[in-house]
Amino acid sequence: MIDLYSAATPNGHKVSITLEELGLPYRLHSIDLGANEQKQDWFLKLNPNGRIPVIVDRDNGDFPVFESGAIMLYLAEKAGGLLPGDARARSLAIQWLMFQMGGLGPMQGQAHVFTRYFPSKIDAAIARYQGETRRLYEVLDGALADRAYLAGDYSIADIASWTWVRWHHWAGVAIDDLRNLTAWVERIAARPAVQRGLENPPQTPQDDKAVEAARSMLAK
Amino acid sequence: MIDLYSAATPNGHKVSITLEELGLPYRLHSIDLGANEQKQDWFLKLNPNGRIPVIVDRDNGDFPVFESGAIMLYLAEKAGGLLPGDARARSLAIQWLMFQMGGLGPMQGQAHVFTRYFPSKIDAAIARYQGETRRLYEVLDGALADRAYLAGDYSIADIASWTWVRWHHWAGVAIDDLRNLTAWVERIAARPAVQRGLENPPQTPQDDKAVEAARSMLAK
Repeated sequence: MIDLYSAATPNGHKVSITLEELGLPYRLHSIDLGANEQKQDWFLKLNPNGRIPVIVDRDNGDFPVFESGAIMLYLAEKAGGLLPGDARARSLAIQWLMFQMGGLGPMQGQAHVFTRYFPSKIDAAIARYQGETRRLYEVLDGALADRAYLAGDYSIADIASWTWVRWHHWAGVAIDDLRNLTAWVERIAARPAVQRGLENPPQTPQDDKAVEAARSMLAK
Repeated sequence: MIDLYSAATPNGHKVSITLEELGLPYRLHSIDLGANEQKQDWFLKLNPNGRIPVIVDRDNGDFPVFESGAIMLYLAEKAGGLLPGDARARSLAIQWLMFQMGGLGPMQGQAHVFTRYFPSKIDAAIARYQGETRRLYEVLDGALADRAYLAGDYSIADIASWTWVRWHHWAGVAIDDLRNLTAWVERIAARPAVQRGLENPPQTPQDDKAVEAARSMLAK
């Protein structure tokens, strides 16, 4: 059994979707970001960085794993799915996973911050991060020109970027003209396991509290 | 033989140091960031994201690998070094690698941009990214309280964060009071393979051209 400590964010949903796709049994523990539960001592023992998601694998000596990308890789290897067996195809999936971890996630995350949460409106910062997010979407769109999924078969690389791209409107970035990307977004959205993952946890009015908490933390 | 396309940046040096530590033979091709060589067609065929570093493994059907984190993992697995054999210790190294890829690198990178390159001085953005970089340094310092290296033995996780932390002054963030972190910085700096990696390529006056290019790109 896997214990999942998470919230309704792109990084949180990466892991719930991965667990659903792999058919691994798990128990969800919703973390109240509005109350800063992820900064409490018990949580910092699982992830010293104080960020969701985290898993604890009860079948592997209560082993904790933090960082969404590391969790996805751990789960894919544990279950033997969502990652090609061929060494080169496997590396390609990891390359696109890293592209999301080091590029798309952080840059779109900053677009969210400056567009939605930051206490002052800084046009130059908004333009920088929306522009970079759009550029990264175009890279994905180009990669998807000749294949249905980033590394050939559907993999953790697709899940990682999908949970971010679906929030493009929240970053204030349009994707209507990126036909390969929009088709890929819809293709993945249609998967039952993805739909189940998005419900663990679902977005609720409580998330407004998290938005307020983010705003007030940034204002300090 | 590995072909390495790189430049004298933290992400570039991650890979040259990894190659030196593993004793893998490689040929360095310095990419002129000032001339935007990484956006040329031949380079985009190796990495559609147009970023250094990239490797091409001539002993594996000319296989290209992009994203520094994916390259490090590929090389460590190829050579069987810098990554623990034990599954849990291996995951821990990957967790810290992801911490660098998704957290420290992007956040310190933004501190560099707003402190050094951005066409206007935006105090709130400088404070945000210097503050977040400092917080991440403190997480590393805490993790190093009871061990010499992030995942037990010296691994790609250490190299990944080290090439960034050594530039802390460039981000405008002090680390003098973080004793575990400064000792770790010195411990790794003393390694001959690390010193060789930093020479491939070395920082040269040409890098001033890259700084100028970054500034002018951001000004557009």
